[in-house]
Amino acid sequence: MKFHLISTWKMSLEGSRKAYETLKNQNDLAEALINGVVNVEDDETVHSVGYGGLPAKDGKVYLDAAYMNGTNMSFGAVSALENIKNPIKVAYHLSKRNLNCYLTGEGASEYAINEGFEQYQMLSTTAYDKWLNRSQELMHDTVCFIGKVDDDMAVAVSTSGLFMKEKGRVGDSPNIGSGYYVDSLIGGCAATGVGENIMRGCLSFKVVMLIKQGIYVQEACKITMNEHIAYLKERNIAYDDISIIALDANGKFGAATSKKAFPFVYADDQLEPRIMVCFNDGKDIWVDQATDEWLATYQGD
Amino acid sequence: MKFHLISTWKMSLEGSRKAYETLKNQNDLAEALINGVVNVEDDETVHSVGYGGLPAKDGKVYLDAAYMNGTNMSFGAVSALENIKNPIKVAYHLSKRNLNCYLTGEGASEYAINEGFEQYQMLSTTAYDKWLNRSQELMHDTVCFIGKVDDDMAVAVSTSGLFMKEKGRVGDSPNIGSGYYVDSLIGGCAATGVGENIMRGCLSFKVVMLIKQGIYVQEACKITMNEHIAYLKERNIAYDDISIIALDANGKFGAATSKKAFPFVYADDQLEPRIMVCFNDGKDIWVDQATDEWLATYQGD
Repeated sequence: MKFHLISTWKMSLEGSRKAYETLKNQNDLAEALINGVVNVEDDETVHSVGYGGLPAKDGKVYLDAAYMNGTNMSFGAVSALENIKNPIKVAYHLSKRNLNCYLTGEGASEYAINEGFEQYQMLSTTAYDKWLNRSQELMHDTVCFIGKVDDDMAVAVSTSGLFMKEKGRVGDSPNIGSGYYVDSLIGGCAATGVGENIMRGCLSFKVVMLIKQGIYVQEACKITMNEHIAYLKERNIAYDDISIIALDANGKFGAATSKKAFPFVYADDQLEPRIMVCFNDGKDIWVDQATDEWLATYQGD
Repeated sequence: MKFHLISTWKMSLEGSRKAYETLKNQNDLAEALINGVVNVEDDETVHSVGYGGLPAKDGKVYLDAAYMNGTNMSFGAVSALENIKNPIKVAYHLSKRNLNCYLTGEGASEYAINEGFEQYQMLSTTAYDKWLNRSQELMHDTVCFIGKVDDDMAVAVSTSGLFMKEKGRVGDSPNIGSGYYVDSLIGGCAATGVGENIMRGCLSFKVVMLIKQGIYVQEACKITMNEHIAYLKERNIAYDDISIIALDANGKFGAATSKKAFPFVYADDQLEPRIMVCFNDGKDIWVDQATDEWLATYQGD
């Protein structure tokens, strides 16, 4: 059995190991991606996803998540979900429906409760303290997993969104085409960063369209990022925090970032999960393995 | 001064006249599109947009709207908005911000109230009766206006979404790339129909990407629709109710539909608003003027 797995940020390493084990033992793509995302959602030290996620301006934690099956093109999403332990499980559950598969706010929370999903007070003490102190750090690191098992591909994303976001703010993550997109016959892509600026370019769908045109996955990521940075620059819109990962139908992966460096995790049936880094020096965008030296100095998620 | 204006459904004729007058007298693109959409939102006889819109399963009216400026790429959107008279005005107001420009649910409604937007009980008696009788008619006709004045383009959309939708259901309309997208240097596109099936293909962004590749706007609409119908068919997903309109940076317009016929309205500085029809006979998709004979027999919006 052949599989490939790519996920955003160093913080997804443990989740990637969980997903990797699931694939080795159960060969279940959906289960693997959900286990990967749940591991990050449940990690209190990650302040941009699930439990421990930083609250909005009003002090409450509102969560977004989405799941898409690239074979039957079903998708499910939630935004502004409250007090549910694992948003990704709700999104996956919703992806089983043809209609009403993207729910928001109270409707999403009530659906999750009625369907028996575990309720949980998602605001951790640390997150609450950070909120009290209005820590200036902008947290918007979304966890995204893209996986491929044999001919099937899927993508799963989860985030608490922009720190100090306004109540009801929706970013790119639950929005198909911007935060995520996958077609098992072509490939998949997912994004992390400032959602509003990702949405202006529908980055995930654009990368998949370029792959469909025959452009190699890493080149598709690079072209999309460079065009988007230029496009935002021309309009004086911030472009300093946008990153994407992609995986094509041949199992080749790619990444691009507008940051100096963006770590992500890759694994396949031949290779245990390892941290990779996408670099952007303003001239070129390329991917390399994370060296111990680099990891020793890296501060972010 | 040159301008072009295209809008979805016969129901937008009066709104198109309002927008046309605004352009003739004030040459204000945003004002024109908003006047056009507001005319449909305020029309009680239109049961899929604004006041008079059909309620969700729970008997309440939840509204979605979005506005995008194709020149500075700013956009604003609301979903699951309650008790606010004109959702499009809130979406336009939100488009003035760089962050937190897409708000949903309670957060969107509270924002609108705080900003002083007119509150209104949006459930009309007729709409309530239709809800009581669970009229089987599926209502999901979104009003979309795309306009171009000199070198500036913008798009505005508004809908009450799928009839009997679940509380919190989000369709394509507020989602950039699926329900709408515009770039003044390339063109714009907007969609109406079953949102879940439009979102699977990010139809609005796809049309704009094809125009960018040099494909003529009507051909871009046709290719996008035919590829999407085939793509949904292969996966046994309903494709019988999807329509799009588009306008390119040269002021040329296009449309495509998966229905037998889809009426829309076109106007420009040389031509007063007139109803056009996009036909799909299963072999070809083409646009023609609406004849009196056709209009006499047409039942829909």
